[in-house]
Amino acid sequence: MFNSGKVVKLYYDVASPYSWLAFEVLFRYRNVWNIDIKLKPAYLGGVIHGSGNQPPGFIPNKMQYMASDLKLLSEYFGVPIFKPPNLYGKGIQSTSHSLLPVHVCFSWTAVAEQEKKGDVLLERVSRELWKRMWCTHQDVTQPASFIEVGLKAGLSTNEAEEILTLAKSQPIKDKLKSVTKEALGPCFGLPFIVCHVNGKAEVFFGSDRFDLMAYFIGNYKDKNYNVDG
Amino acid sequence: MFNSGKVVKLYYDVASPYSWLAFEVLFRYRNVWNIDIKLKPAYLGGVIHGSGNQPPGFIPNKMQYMASDLKLLSEYFGVPIFKPPNLYGKGIQSTSHSLLPVHVCFSWTAVAEQEKKGDVLLERVSRELWKRMWCTHQDVTQPASFIEVGLKAGLSTNEAEEILTLAKSQPIKDKLKSVTKEALGPCFGLPFIVCHVNGKAEVFFGSDRFDLMAYFIGNYKDKNYNVDG
Repeated sequence: MFNSGKVVKLYYDVASPYSWLAFEVLFRYRNVWNIDIKLKPAYLGGVIHGSGNQPPGFIPNKMQYMASDLKLLSEYFGVPIFKPPNLYGKGIQSTSHSLLPVHVCFSWTAVAEQEKKGDVLLERVSRELWKRMWCTHQDVTQPASFIEVGLKAGLSTNEAEEILTLAKSQPIKDKLKSVTKEALGPCFGLPFIVCHVNGKAEVFFGSDRFDLMAYFIGNYKDKNYNVDG
Repeated sequence: MFNSGKVVKLYYDVASPYSWLAFEVLFRYRNVWNIDIKLKPAYLGGVIHGSGNQPPGFIPNKMQYMASDLKLLSEYFGVPIFKPPNLYGKGIQSTSHSLLPVHVCFSWTAVAEQEKKGDVLLERVSRELWKRMWCTHQDVTQPASFIEVGLKAGLSTNEAEEILTLAKSQPIKDKLKSVTKEALGPCFGLPFIVCHVNGKAEVFFGSDRFDLMAYFIGNYKDKNYNVDG
Protein backbone atom coordinates (compact mmCIF):
# COMPACT_ATOMS: atom_id res chain seq x y z
CA MET A 1 0.00 0.00 0.00
CA PHE A 2 1.30 3.46 -0.92
CA ASN A 3 2.34 5.44 2.10
CA SER A 4 1.48 9.11 1.58
CA GLY A 5 3.50 10.23 4.58
CA LYS A 6 0.38 12.03 5.82
CA VAL A 7 -0.97 10.35 8.94
CA VAL A 8 -4.11 11.46 10.75
CA LYS A 9 -4.62 9.99 14.23
CA LEU A 10 -8.16 10.09 15.58
CA TYR A 11 -8.50 9.73 19.38
CA TYR A 12 -12.12 8.89 20.13
CA ASP A 13 -14.66 7.20 22.37
CA VAL A 14 -18.04 5.97 21.10
CA ALA A 15 -19.65 7.72 24.08
CA SER A 16 -18.91 10.96 22.17
CA PRO A 17 -21.29 11.82 19.30
CA TYR A 18 -18.89 14.52 18.05
CA SER A 19 -16.32 11.71 17.69
CA TRP A 20 -18.73 9.92 15.35
CA LEU A 21 -18.94 13.01 13.14
CA ALA A 22 -15.14 13.36 13.05
CA PHE A 23 -14.79 9.64 12.25
CA GLU A 24 -17.25 9.67 9.32
CA VAL A 25 -15.99 12.93 7.83
CA LEU A 26 -12.32 11.85 8.04
CA PHE A 27 -13.09 8.56 6.26
CA ARG A 28 -14.90 10.53 3.53
CA TYR A 29 -11.83 12.74 3.02
CA ARG A 30 -9.30 9.86 3.26
CA ASN A 31 -8.86 9.44 -0.51
CA VAL A 32 -9.35 13.13 -1.32
CA TRP A 33 -6.62 14.20 1.10
CA ASN A 34 -4.55 11.03 0.53
CA ILE A 35 -4.14 10.39 4.25
CA ASP A 36 -3.57 7.30 6.37
CA ILE A 37 -6.08 7.25 9.24
CA LYS A 38 -4.97 5.67 12.51
CA LEU A 39 -7.84 4.95 14.88
CA LYS A 40 -6.96 5.50 18.54
CA PRO A 41 -9.79 4.37 20.83
CA ALA A 42 -9.38 6.13 24.19
CA TYR A 43 -11.45 6.58 27.37
CA LEU A 44 -13.36 9.90 27.42
CA GLY A 45 -13.79 9.82 31.21
CA GLY A 46 -10.01 9.53 31.66
CA VAL A 47 -9.31 12.39 29.25
CA ILE A 48 -11.87 14.73 30.81
CA HIS A 49 -10.86 14.09 34.40
CA GLY A 50 -7.15 13.87 33.67
CA SER A 51 -7.11 17.29 31.96
CA GLY A 52 -9.22 18.98 34.66
CA ASN A 53 -12.02 19.68 32.18
CA GLN A 54 -15.73 19.60 33.06
CA PRO A 55 -18.04 17.10 31.37
CA PRO A 56 -20.71 19.00 29.34
CA GLY A 57 -23.39 17.78 31.77
CA PHE A 58 -22.07 20.22 34.38
CA ILE A 59 -23.24 23.21 32.35
CA PRO A 60 -27.00 23.07 31.60
CA ASN A 61 -26.71 25.71 28.81
CA LYS A 62 -23.98 23.66 27.12
CA MET A 63 -26.13 20.52 27.24
CA GLN A 64 -29.08 22.34 25.71
CA TYR A 65 -26.86 23.83 23.03
CA MET A 66 -25.39 20.40 22.22
CA ALA A 67 -28.89 19.07 21.52
CA SER A 68 -29.68 21.70 18.87
CA ASP A 69 -26.09 21.71 17.55
CA LEU A 70 -26.05 17.92 17.06
CA LYS A 71 -29.46 17.98 15.39
CA LEU A 72 -28.27 20.47 12.77
CA LEU A 73 -24.84 18.83 12.37
CA SER A 74 -26.49 15.44 11.92
CA GLU A 75 -28.62 16.85 9.06
CA TYR A 76 -25.72 18.76 7.53
CA PHE A 77 -23.22 15.89 7.55
CA GLY A 78 -25.79 13.14 6.96
CA VAL A 79 -24.79 11.17 10.07
CA PRO A 80 -27.90 9.85 11.86
CA ILE A 81 -27.27 11.09 15.41
CA PHE A 82 -30.29 11.21 17.69
CA LYS A 83 -30.29 12.19 21.35
CA PRO A 84 -30.94 9.15 23.56
CA PRO A 85 -34.25 9.60 25.42
CA ASN A 86 -32.59 9.67 28.86
CA LEU A 87 -29.74 12.04 28.00
CA TYR A 88 -31.23 15.07 29.71
CA GLY A 89 -32.94 13.23 32.51
CA LYS A 90 -32.18 13.38 36.20
CA GLY A 91 -28.52 12.69 35.53
CA ILE A 92 -27.86 16.10 34.02
CA GLN A 93 -25.40 16.98 36.77
CA SER A 94 -23.63 13.64 36.62
CA THR A 95 -21.49 12.15 33.92
CA SER A 96 -23.10 8.73 34.03
CA HIS A 97 -25.47 9.35 31.13
CA SER A 98 -22.74 10.16 28.65
CA LEU A 99 -19.67 8.24 29.78
CA LEU A 100 -19.46 4.49 29.33
CA PRO A 101 -18.10 2.14 32.00
CA VAL A 102 -14.40 1.64 31.30
CA HIS A 103 -14.83 -2.14 30.83
CA VAL A 104 -16.84 -1.41 27.67
CA CYS A 105 -13.91 0.50 26.22
CA PHE A 106 -11.68 -2.53 26.76
CA SER A 107 -13.67 -4.42 24.10
CA TRP A 108 -12.77 -2.09 21.21
CA THR A 109 -9.22 -1.76 22.46
CA ALA A 110 -9.13 -5.57 22.15
CA VAL A 111 -10.45 -5.26 18.56
CA ALA A 112 -7.61 -2.82 17.79
CA GLU A 113 -5.07 -5.19 19.36
CA GLN A 114 -6.44 -8.28 17.57
CA GLU A 115 -6.32 -6.63 14.16
CA LYS A 116 -2.96 -7.08 12.53
CA LYS A 117 -3.22 -4.94 9.40
CA GLY A 118 -5.00 -1.59 9.19
CA ASP A 119 -8.13 -0.68 11.10
CA VAL A 120 -10.89 -2.17 8.90
CA LEU A 121 -12.49 -4.26 11.66
CA LEU A 122 -12.10 -1.50 14.24
CA GLU A 123 -13.73 0.96 11.81
CA ARG A 124 -16.73 -1.37 11.37
CA VAL A 125 -17.07 -2.20 15.07
CA SER A 126 -16.82 1.47 16.08
CA ARG A 127 -19.47 2.49 13.54
CA GLU A 128 -21.86 -0.24 14.76
CA LEU A 129 -21.33 0.85 18.37
CA TRP A 130 -22.04 4.50 17.51
CA LYS A 131 -25.19 3.43 15.64
CA ARG A 132 -26.43 1.58 18.72
CA MET A 133 -25.58 4.40 21.14
CA TRP A 134 -26.60 7.44 19.10
CA CYS A 135 -29.10 6.19 16.51
CA THR A 136 -31.06 3.12 17.59
CA HIS A 137 -30.36 3.63 21.34
CA GLN A 138 -29.57 -0.01 22.09
CA ASP A 139 -27.37 -1.26 24.90
CA VAL A 140 -23.60 -1.37 24.26
CA THR A 141 -22.44 -2.43 27.72
CA GLN A 142 -23.38 -6.13 27.83
CA PRO A 143 -21.37 -9.00 26.28
CA ALA A 144 -24.41 -10.06 24.21
CA SER A 145 -24.53 -6.55 22.71
CA PHE A 146 -20.88 -6.80 21.70
CA ILE A 147 -21.53 -10.18 20.02
CA GLU A 148 -24.34 -8.57 17.97
CA VAL A 149 -22.01 -5.70 17.01
CA GLY A 150 -19.27 -8.17 16.08
CA LEU A 151 -21.62 -10.16 13.82
CA LYS A 152 -22.67 -6.98 12.01
CA ALA A 153 -19.01 -6.03 11.61
CA GLY A 154 -18.22 -9.37 9.95
CA LEU A 155 -16.90 -11.43 12.89
CA SER A 156 -18.09 -14.93 13.75
CA THR A 157 -19.61 -15.50 17.20
CA ASN A 158 -16.43 -17.35 18.21
CA GLU A 159 -14.21 -14.48 17.12
CA ALA A 160 -16.35 -11.94 18.97
CA GLU A 161 -16.21 -14.12 22.11
CA GLU A 162 -12.44 -14.37 21.81
CA ILE A 163 -12.23 -10.59 21.70
CA LEU A 164 -14.40 -10.32 24.83
CA THR A 165 -12.03 -12.71 26.62
CA LEU A 166 -9.01 -10.74 25.43
CA ALA A 167 -10.74 -7.54 26.63
CA LYS A 168 -10.47 -8.78 30.23
CA SER A 169 -6.71 -9.26 30.08
CA GLN A 170 -4.16 -6.97 31.71
CA PRO A 171 -2.33 -6.04 28.46
CA ILE A 172 -5.60 -4.64 27.05
CA LYS A 173 -6.27 -2.62 30.21
CA ASP A 174 -2.72 -1.30 30.01
CA LYS A 175 -3.16 -0.51 26.31
CA LEU A 176 -6.31 1.61 26.87
CA LYS A 177 -4.59 3.38 29.74
CA SER A 178 -1.56 4.09 27.58
CA VAL A 179 -3.57 5.45 24.60
CA THR A 180 -5.65 7.61 26.97
CA LYS A 181 -2.42 8.90 28.53
CA GLU A 182 -0.99 9.56 25.06
CA ALA A 183 -4.14 11.58 24.23
CA LEU A 184 -3.86 13.43 27.53
CA GLY A 185 -0.53 14.87 26.41
CA PRO A 186 -2.18 17.66 24.42
CA CYS A 187 -5.91 17.18 24.82
CA PHE A 188 -8.88 17.95 27.10
CA GLY A 189 -11.78 16.15 25.41
CA LEU A 190 -12.62 13.87 22.49
CA PRO A 191 -12.49 13.70 19.53
CA PHE A 192 -8.91 14.85 19.26
CA ILE A 193 -7.14 14.67 15.92
CA VAL A 194 -3.40 14.84 15.30
CA CYS A 195 -2.27 15.41 11.71
CA HIS A 196 1.32 14.46 10.89
CA VAL A 197 2.58 15.91 7.61
CA ASN A 198 6.25 15.93 6.61
CA GLY A 199 7.52 15.72 10.17
CA LYS A 200 5.22 18.47 11.42
CA ALA A 201 2.26 17.72 13.71
CA GLU A 202 -0.83 19.85 14.25
CA VAL A 203 -3.63 19.09 16.72
CA PHE A 204 -7.35 19.69 16.20
CA PHE A 205 -10.05 19.37 18.84
CA GLY A 206 -13.66 18.50 17.98
CA SER A 207 -15.42 17.90 14.69
CA ASP A 208 -15.35 21.47 13.34
CA ARG A 209 -11.84 22.00 12.00
CA PHE A 210 -11.97 20.07 8.70
CA ASP A 211 -11.38 23.26 6.68
CA LEU A 212 -8.33 24.02 8.82
CA MET A 213 -7.08 20.42 8.44
CA ALA A 214 -7.42 20.67 4.66
CA TYR A 215 -5.52 23.97 4.83
CA PHE A 216 -2.77 22.43 6.99
CA ILE A 217 -2.45 19.27 4.87
CA GLY A 218 -2.78 21.12 1.53
CA ASN A 219 -0.38 23.86 2.55
CA TYR A 220 2.37 21.37 3.15
CA LYS A 221 1.65 19.66 -0.15
CA ASP A 222 1.86 23.00 -1.96
CA LYS A 223 5.14 23.84 -0.26
CA ASN A 224 6.52 20.53 -1.50
CA TYR A 225 5.36 21.28 -5.01
CA ASN A 226 7.23 24.58 -4.83
CA VAL A 227 10.36 22.81 -3.67
CA ASP A 228 10.13 20.16 -6.38
CA GLY A 229 9.14 22.56 -9.15
CA MET B 1 -32.67 49.99 3.54
CA PHE B 2 -34.02 46.66 2.37
CA ASN B 3 -34.87 44.40 5.23
CA SER B 4 -34.07 40.81 4.30
CA GLY B 5 -35.90 39.41 7.33
CA LYS B 6 -32.70 37.50 8.19
CA VAL B 7 -31.14 38.88 11.34
CA VAL B 8 -27.88 37.60 12.82
CA LYS B 9 -27.14 38.74 16.38
CA LEU B 10 -23.50 38.53 17.46
CA TYR B 11 -22.90 38.53 21.23
CA TYR B 12 -19.23 39.31 21.83
CA ASP B 13 -16.53 40.80 24.02
CA VAL B 14 -13.25 42.15 22.65
CA ALA B 15 -11.46 40.12 25.32
CA SER B 16 -12.31 37.08 23.19
CA PRO B 17 -10.16 36.51 20.08
CA TYR B 18 -12.65 33.94 18.75
CA SER B 19 -15.23 36.76 18.86
CA TRP B 20 -12.99 38.76 16.54
CA LEU B 21 -12.94 35.89 14.02
CA ALA B 22 -16.73 35.54 14.16
CA PHE B 23 -17.12 39.31 13.75
CA GLU B 24 -14.87 39.57 10.66
CA VAL B 25 -16.25 36.46 8.97
CA LEU B 26 -19.89 37.50 9.54
CA PHE B 27 -19.22 40.95 8.01
CA ARG B 28 -17.61 39.24 5.00
CA TYR B 29 -20.72 37.10 4.50
CA ARG B 30 -23.20 39.93 5.17
CA ASN B 31 -23.92 40.71 1.51
CA VAL B 32 -23.49 37.12 0.32
CA TRP B 33 -26.04 35.80 2.81
CA ASN B 34 -28.12 39.00 2.69
CA ILE B 35 -28.29 39.31 6.46
CA ASP B 36 -28.70 42.17 8.91
CA ILE B 37 -26.00 41.95 11.58
CA LYS B 38 -26.89 43.21 15.06
CA LEU B 39 -23.86 43.71 17.28
CA LYS B 40 -24.47 42.83 20.92
CA PRO B 41 -21.50 43.73 23.12
CA ALA B 42 -21.69 41.66 26.31
CA TYR B 43 -19.41 40.91 29.28
CA LEU B 44 -17.51 37.63 28.88
CA GLY B 45 -16.83 37.34 32.62
CA GLY B 46 -20.56 37.57 33.36
CA VAL B 47 -21.42 34.97 30.74
CA ILE B 48 -18.77 32.48 31.89
CA HIS B 49 -19.53 32.79 35.59
CA GLY B 50 -23.29 33.05 35.13
CA SER B 51 -23.44 29.81 33.13
CA GLY B 52 -21.15 27.89 35.49
CA ASN B 53 -18.53 27.44 32.76
CA GLN B 54 -14.76 27.44 33.40
CA PRO B 55 -12.56 30.10 31.78
CA PRO B 56 -10.05 28.40 29.42
CA GLY B 57 -7.21 29.39 31.76
CA PHE B 58 -8.36 26.72 34.21
CA ILE B 59 -7.32 23.95 31.82
CA PRO B 60 -3.65 24.18 30.82
CA ASN B 61 -4.13 21.81 27.84
CA LYS B 62 -6.96 23.98 26.53
CA MET B 63 -4.81 27.12 26.81
CA GLN B 64 -1.97 25.47 24.91
CA TYR B 65 -4.37 24.23 22.27
CA MET B 66 -5.90 27.70 21.89
CA ALA B 67 -2.46 29.11 21.09
CA SER B 68 -1.85 26.74 18.14
CA ASP B 69 -5.53 26.84 17.09
CA LEU B 70 -5.60 30.66 16.97
CA LYS B 71 -2.31 30.77 15.07
CA LEU B 72 -3.68 28.54 12.32
CA LEU B 73 -7.14 30.19 12.31
CA SER B 74 -5.51 33.60 12.06
CA GLU B 75 -3.58 32.49 8.94
CA TYR B 76 -6.57 30.72 7.44
CA PHE B 77 -9.07 33.57 7.92
CA GLY B 78 -6.54 36.36 7.40
CA VAL B 79 -7.31 38.04 10.74
CA PRO B 80 -4.06 39.19 12.42
CA ILE B 81 -4.45 37.61 15.87
CA PHE B 82 -1.28 37.30 17.93
CA LYS B 83 -1.04 35.99 21.47
CA PRO B 84 -0.24 38.82 23.92
CA PRO B 85 3.20 38.21 25.50
CA ASN B 86 1.76 37.84 29.02
CA LEU B 87 -1.12 35.51 28.14
CA TYR B 88 0.50 32.36 29.52
CA GLY B 89 2.35 33.99 32.36
CA LYS B 90 1.81 33.49 36.06
CA GLY B 91 -1.89 34.20 35.65
CA ILE B 92 -2.61 30.90 33.90
CA GLN B 93 -4.88 29.76 36.73
CA SER B 94 -6.68 33.08 37.03
CA THR B 95 -8.96 34.81 34.58
CA SER B 96 -7.35 38.21 34.92
CA HIS B 97 -5.16 37.89 31.82
CA SER B 98 -8.04 37.28 29.45
CA LEU B 99 -11.03 39.08 30.96
CA LEU B 100 -11.25 42.84 30.88
CA PRO B 101 -12.42 44.93 33.85
CA VAL B 102 -16.16 45.47 33.46
CA HIS B 103 -15.75 49.29 33.31
CA VAL B 104 -13.96 48.86 29.97
CA CYS B 105 -17.01 47.09 28.53
CA PHE B 106 -19.19 50.06 29.52
CA SER B 107 -17.37 52.19 26.92
CA TRP B 108 -18.46 50.16 23.90
CA THR B 109 -21.93 49.69 25.34
CA ALA B 110 -22.03 53.51 25.40
CA VAL B 111 -20.97 53.54 21.72
CA ALA B 112 -23.86 51.18 20.92
CA GLU B 113 -26.28 53.38 22.87
CA GLN B 114 -25.01 56.62 21.31
CA GLU B 115 -25.39 55.30 17.76
CA LYS B 116 -28.86 55.90 16.44
CA LYS B 117 -28.84 54.07 13.10
CA GLY B 118 -27.07 50.76 12.41
CA ASP B 119 -23.82 49.68 14.02
CA VAL B 120 -21.20 51.38 11.80
CA LEU B 121 -19.41 53.21 14.61
CA LEU B 122 -19.64 50.22 16.95
CA GLU B 123 -18.19 48.02 14.20
CA ARG B 124 -15.20 50.38 13.77
CA VAL B 125 -14.61 50.85 17.51
CA SER B 126 -14.79 47.10 18.17
CA ARG B 127 -12.32 46.33 15.37
CA GLU B 128 -9.85 48.94 16.67
CA LEU B 129 -10.14 47.52 20.20
CA TRP B 130 -9.49 43.96 18.93
CA LYS B 131 -6.47 45.22 16.97
CA ARG B 132 -5.03 46.77 20.12
CA MET B 133 -5.74 43.72 22.31
CA TRP B 134 -4.85 40.90 19.93
CA CYS B 135 -2.54 42.40 17.31
CA THR B 136 -0.49 45.37 18.54
CA HIS B 137 -0.94 44.51 22.25
CA GLN B 138 -1.66 48.05 23.40
CA ASP B 139 -3.67 49.03 26.47
CA VAL B 140 -7.47 49.18 26.11
CA THR B 141 -8.39 49.90 29.72
CA GLN B 142 -7.42 53.60 30.10
CA PRO B 143 -9.54 56.59 28.98
CA ALA B 144 -6.64 57.84 26.81
CA SER B 145 -6.64 54.48 24.97
CA PHE B 146 -10.34 54.82 24.26
CA ILE B 147 -9.81 58.34 22.88
CA GLU B 148 -7.14 56.94 20.48
CA VAL B 149 -9.54 54.17 19.42
CA GLY B 150 -12.33 56.71 18.92
CA LEU B 151 -10.15 58.92 16.70
CA LYS B 152 -9.22 55.92 14.52
CA ALA B 153 -12.90 54.99 14.30
CA GLY B 154 -13.80 58.48 13.02
CA LEU B 155 -14.91 60.25 16.22
CA SER B 156 -13.64 63.65 17.32
CA THR B 157 -11.89 63.90 20.70
CA ASN B 158 -14.99 65.64 22.09
CA GLU B 159 -17.29 62.88 20.87
CA ALA B 160 -15.03 60.18 22.35
CA GLU B 161 -14.94 62.04 25.68
CA GLU B 162 -18.74 62.32 25.66
CA ILE B 163 -18.96 58.56 25.21
CA LEU B 164 -16.58 58.01 28.14
CA THR B 165 -18.81 60.21 30.32
CA LEU B 166 -21.90 58.36 29.15
CA ALA B 167 -20.10 55.05 29.93
CA LYS B 168 -20.13 55.94 33.64
CA SER B 169 -23.90 56.42 33.78
CA GLN B 170 -26.32 53.98 35.37
CA PRO B 171 -28.37 53.36 32.19
CA ILE B 172 -25.22 52.10 30.42
CA LYS B 173 -24.33 49.79 33.32
CA ASP B 174 -27.91 48.50 33.23
CA LYS B 175 -27.72 48.05 29.46
CA LEU B 176 -24.55 45.90 29.59
CA LYS B 177 -26.07 43.87 32.40
CA SER B 178 -29.24 43.36 30.39
CA VAL B 179 -27.44 42.27 27.17
CA THR B 180 -25.21 39.89 29.17
CA LYS B 181 -28.34 38.47 30.84
CA GLU B 182 -30.00 38.13 27.41
CA ALA B 183 -26.92 36.20 26.17
CA LEU B 184 -26.97 34.05 29.31
CA GLY B 185 -30.37 32.71 28.29
CA PRO B 186 -28.87 30.15 25.91
CA CYS B 187 -25.13 30.60 26.13
CA PHE B 188 -22.01 29.63 28.11
CA GLY B 189 -19.23 31.59 26.40
CA LEU B 190 -18.58 34.13 23.65
CA PRO B 191 -18.93 34.58 20.74
CA PHE B 192 -22.52 33.45 20.63
CA ILE B 193 -24.51 33.94 17.44
CA VAL B 194 -28.28 33.81 17.08
CA CYS B 195 -29.67 33.59 13.53
CA HIS B 196 -33.30 34.61 13.06
CA VAL B 197 -34.78 33.48 9.74
CA ASN B 198 -38.50 33.57 9.02
CA GLY B 199 -39.54 33.41 12.65
CA LYS B 200 -37.17 30.54 13.47
CA ALA B 201 -34.06 31.07 15.61
CA GLU B 202 -30.94 28.92 15.73
CA VAL B 203 -27.98 29.44 18.07
CA PHE B 204 -24.30 28.93 17.23
CA PHE B 205 -21.42 29.01 19.69
CA GLY B 206 -17.89 29.97 18.67
CA SER B 207 -16.34 30.87 15.34
CA ASP B 208 -16.52 27.45 13.66
CA ARG B 209 -20.13 27.04 12.53
CA PHE B 210 -20.21 29.28 9.41
CA ASP B 211 -20.95 26.29 7.15
CA LEU B 212 -23.85 25.33 9.42
CA MET B 213 -25.12 28.93 9.47
CA ALA B 214 -25.04 29.04 5.66
CA TYR B 215 -26.93 25.74 5.65
CA PHE B 216 -29.52 27.06 8.12
CA ILE B 217 -29.98 30.41 6.36
CA GLY B 218 -29.89 28.90 2.85
CA ASN B 219 -32.27 26.11 3.72
CA TYR B 220 -34.95 28.53 4.78
CA LYS B 221 -34.44 30.65 1.68
CA ASP B 222 -34.91 27.55 -0.51
CA LYS B 223 -38.09 26.65 1.34
CA ASN B 224 -39.44 30.13 0.61
CA TYR B 225 -38.60 29.77 -3.05
CA ASN B 226 -40.60 26.56 -3.11
CA VAL B 227 -43.56 28.26 -1.49
CA ASP B 228 -43.44 31.28 -3.82
CA GLY B 229 -42.80 29.26 -6.97
